[in-house]
Amino acid sequence: MKYDFSDEVARTIPDTFYPVERLQKFTHLGIVKSYAKGSAITLPGDSEPMLIYVLSGKVQNKMVTEDGREKLHYFCGKNGILCKLFPMNHDNSYITAIEKCSVCFFTEAQLKEIFQIDDNIFFEILKNTFSKSLYFMMQIIEMELFNPTIRIVRLIYGLCISNGIPVGNSYEVRLELSQRTISEISGVHHVTISKVLGYLEKQKIIEKKKGKIIIHDLDRLKELTFEKHLF
Amino acid sequence: MKYDFSDEVARTIPDTFYPVERLQKFTHLGIVKSYAKGSAITLPGDSEPMLIYVLSGKVQNKMVTEDGREKLHYFCGKNGILCKLFPMNHDNSYITAIEKCSVCFFTEAQLKEIFQIDDNIFFEILKNTFSKSLYFMMQIIEMELFNPTIRIVRLIYGLCISNGIPVGNSYEVRLELSQRTISEISGVHHVTISKVLGYLEKQKIIEKKKGKIIIHDLDRLKELTFEKHLF
Repeated sequence: MKYDFSDEVARTIPDTFYPVERLQKFTHLGIVKSYAKGSAITLPGDSEPMLIYVLSGKVQNKMVTEDGREKLHYFCGKNGILCKLFPMNHDNSYITAIEKCSVCFFTEAQLKEIFQIDDNIFFEILKNTFSKSLYFMMQIIEMELFNPTIRIVRLIYGLCISNGIPVGNSYEVRLELSQRTISEISGVHHVTISKVLGYLEKQKIIEKKKGKIIIHDLDRLKELTFEKHLF
Repeated sequence: MKYDFSDEVARTIPDTFYPVERLQKFTHLGIVKSYAKGSAITLPGDSEPMLIYVLSGKVQNKMVTEDGREKLHYFCGKNGILCKLFPMNHDNSYITAIEKCSVCFFTEAQLKEIFQIDDNIFFEILKNTFSKSLYFMMQIIEMELFNPTIRIVRLIYGLCISNGIPVGNSYEVRLELSQRTISEISGVHHVTISKVLGYLEKQKIIEKKKGKIIIHDLDRLKELTFEKHLF
């Protein structure tokens, strides 16, 4: 199946992006390490240039802002990569295992060796980086065009389109999405998120249960994505 | 001189990003075309996969949003690249020459040929794509953390730090930056931009002249970057 990069334009959760499956064949050329849930894979200021390839589990890439706040860049699961190849004097980002995970580190020299064997790998790595830049470009436009309340509506609608499983007349999005995670993904304040979810529940459009969001009225939810603001 | 990717974090104008100078040596392997100012290099929906390399002049990459608005992605000048290598079913972006320019088109096959000769080119192309994704990630954080008025103050301050030329007790940023361009870059409404510039001029912090912005009070401007809002 051909990957369609339009999917990145419609992506709702910044996770893994384009999967670089072909790199699996070359992990013997890199260094594989395992991490317990919660442990640090890289710290702010770490400067050893590497490509980090996730073999199993899930990691997150966050940064510390000038004023000391933590900001999520993206999550990365199996077959995703994190590019730490290039020098930065003030790299405030850091990678943490959010599940037990196994990752492979490649240096520039090791990657060159791999390219000699498989010259498609380059394009696979470029695709992953490109898919990230596409997602972030689209997020900027999303933030410029839509009110925070509508962005949350659009996020839930997008999740239903990409992950919704039909159950009776409803759809279930089976994801453990805390309000904190929704806030990290969208940049919308958690109080606003709480209000939006409360509103949608009261209108019987959605129902939030442990480990899932049930969408009872997808048509109405879609209509709301075109509003200027929710309340 | 080693390129520092921290510069991308502090970038104020999305223009060119990491310059891929090494590709100059290989333009005889691609197809070089010239464009008059204002002409279309690619149109929305164009699907021929290509890497586009700017040899001279300047282009812009814009997109048409769902609701028909035009949004700037970035500008690209000499040694910059525009990645159109990967299939997208609904690619609403398009590239226009904003100056007379000359660009070189490379297919995937031609790039593979080039990598056989110079395996550093791959990393150069990846660096450009990476620098874009870094800039866009930082823009999202900028939009989450700062009020629109402060974002304009930060933009002018950033321009002064990156492009300011000392003249007497002041600094001159010699760029032809219309309010429209500032609006396209920042996503801030032009009315807000006009108000911010008016405020800064009235306070004698800056002075806007044809083709340049003069910063008279850089210390005061810096102080304002830490405010919650300007007025």
